Amino acid sequence: MTTLPVLKPGDTVGILGGGQLGRMLALAAAELGLNCHIYAPEKNSCAFDVVRDKTCAPYEDEAALARFADAVSVVTYEFENIPAATSKFLRERKPVLPNPDALEIVQDRLTEKEFVAKLGIGTAGFAAVSSLDELHAAITKLGAPSILKTRRMGYDGKGQASVKSPSDAAAAWEAIGRAPAILEQFVSFEREVSVVAARNVRGEVIAFEPAENLHRDHILHRTRVPAQIPGALGGQAGVIAGKIAAALDYVGVLAVEMFVVDDGGKRRLLVNEIAPRVHNSGHWTIDGATASQFEQHIRAVAGWPLAKPRRLGRVEMINLIGDEVNGWQKYLAEPGACLHIYGKGEPRPGRKMGHVTYILPDGGTSE
Amino acid sequence: MTTLPVLKPGDTVGILGGGQLGRMLALAAAELGLNCHIYAPEKNSCAFDVVRDKTCAPYEDEAALARFADAVSVVTYEFENIPAATSKFLRERKPVLPNPDALEIVQDRLTEKEFVAKLGIGTAGFAAVSSLDELHAAITKLGAPSILKTRRMGYDGKGQASVKSPSDAAAAWEAIGRAPAILEQFVSFEREVSVVAARNVRGEVIAFEPAENLHRDHILHRTRVPAQIPGALGGQAGVIAGKIAAALDYVGVLAVEMFVVDDGGKRRLLVNEIAPRVHNSGHWTIDGATASQFEQHIRAVAGWPLAKPRRLGRVEMINLIGDEVNGWQKYLAEPGACLHIYGKGEPRPGRKMGHVTYILPDGGTSE
Repeated sequence: MTTLPVLKPGDTVGILGGGQLGRMLALAAAELGLNCHIYAPEKNSCAFDVVRDKTCAPYEDEAALARFADAVSVVTYEFENIPAATSKFLRERKPVLPNPDALEIVQDRLTEKEFVAKLGIGTAGFAAVSSLDELHAAITKLGAPSILKTRRMGYDGKGQASVKSPSDAAAAWEAIGRAPAILEQFVSFEREVSVVAARNVRGEVIAFEPAENLHRDHILHRTRVPAQIPGALGGQAGVIAGKIAAALDYVGVLAVEMFVVDDGGKRRLLVNEIAPRVHNSGHWTIDGATASQFEQHIRAVAGWPLAKPRRLGRVEMINLIGDEVNGWQKYLAEPGACLHIYGKGEPRPGRKMGHVTYILPDGGTSE
Repeated sequence: MTTLPVLKPGDTVGILGGGQLGRMLALAAAELGLNCHIYAPEKNSCAFDVVRDKTCAPYEDEAALARFADAVSVVTYEFENIPAATSKFLRERKPVLPNPDALEIVQDRLTEKEFVAKLGIGTAGFAAVSSLDELHAAITKLGAPSILKTRRMGYDGKGQASVKSPSDAAAAWEAIGRAPAILEQFVSFEREVSVVAARNVRGEVIAFEPAENLHRDHILHRTRVPAQIPGALGGQAGVIAGKIAAALDYVGVLAVEMFVVDDGGKRRLLVNEIAPRVHNSGHWTIDGATASQFEQHIRAVAGWPLAKPRRLGRVEMINLIGDEVNGWQKYLAEPGACLHIYGKGEPRPGRKMGHVTYILPDGGTSE
């Protein structure tokens, strides 16, 4: 399918994946008068609870996928590790946005880094690793410390092993299960920022200003906006995100995570990762901007004009990970705290259960 | 039932009524990690589309009501004309909030006005009318112009007839179907304002600042915040809403509509109507405040602390009535317009189909 539809209120957006991102997409779609149909294999998917239509089936169930495609106007996803066969099957029946080719590039850390480097955008040094011998060679080339990451299916620090010295090679190779991998040079960064940007069918790109992120145990802990970086660097970050979105012929919201490094007194940006979906570091936009990343994504995949969001103050977003969500009563009682709980049932260590946003007046600064 | 539960995330709020107010309540509950169960007789209820649990049955179906009560932790409503027998049946099984006694008082324009007057709060002059003779007597007492309104089931100008001169009496009496009625003195008001206030189980009251409303054909057309009234009068409006909420032993959100009249150079407030539910004139709070009226209502009926909402700018809300919703593409393209469409299907004249909110920076003024 190559023609992209323009949805109208009452139409249905199909979403692959039933986690909190799907749930927040569905809530944003509902405000705009659109229905959502969630397709997810997990029975307790929290996105099921806020939509009219749901399919609980494996991503390989072609009969279920065909019924799903029939029932929706367009397909999108909240989860980038959708099997390629699933998106291929669906795109023969309905538009799948963002296009699955973009998904394939960023599903693999090696093709992702190669793609970014080819655009002339900085990244940490990297090398492909498919054997212990290649790992030794990569360490010789890039030095240590460095980080070994599986090419596929990694998120929140999963599938990674640090190589502090060349003698860690064998242990790191075992730790990631000898999977096809990439070795990345360790970057001593000043701070981590991310840009959440939307691109629509007409090629218009609208980016939220860069957010500054703090991770704990490889999981996003806190996002602050505005990032404490010079305005010019913030502009560059937006340009990078737009360049990537255009090169991917992307329709929807994506997030680009970047390191800010001090290169002999001059600050530079290195792209760390592209997330081809709405992103945790954009959750602040629900309460902190006149349109959220979820609304932007829905507008883009619906073939609608993008919103021009305005930030409503200085914003801080704190993730509630695992049993931190048990502090919900504290946040409910805290003046100015906007509490979000994802309805995911029992907290488990490392599981994202909710978030809290604070909006502080900043004298009218806006992006 | 007298003990009021404190809900926890994952619990279910039962909502009677399936219109846009129920839908927006359910969306607010979802952000807080609560489920909603919508009970409504109409098959195409737009609130059904955003919740996990739904019951489509008449308000008189006791078997369905009993199952509904079993499935929820607390019952609330989005619609004040719930039959008294329904709430009586439910409150024997689960807490019903706000309490149905409050509902009964305001379901009847006469008992409502008497209740307000007894609190020492100003209203337009009024008189009970249950026959044409009584209508003639009431017109003699209150003068013309005046307005004849059915005591029950009126909203958006339905069940009203204007009495421009005493000779209109018979026609007006026919126009409202000879139903038990109230004659209200015509008030030449400067402006209409409303206060949306929340009260929780502990008796805490938090009011949004007064909004200024403009009606067209008896239907709310536009709300602006802040209202163009002196600060002291705004304070009085908040006190009136709090007094009413306390006297009703109210738990949840209510709205009090008031007229601002110029009483020989001095401005006074006259209460026009109490809506025992979230209210159209509070829709601006979704985009324009750090917590919405819908979140406040859910917090109150969940036994949770109320939020302390802060206004995010000057706000204007425009209703999309009937086929005005067909202008959705215009609003989508308008920078700064926050569009809400209720998913109600075909537009009909006078039907509330959506709204648009604008937030304009105001230099940090907040309530």
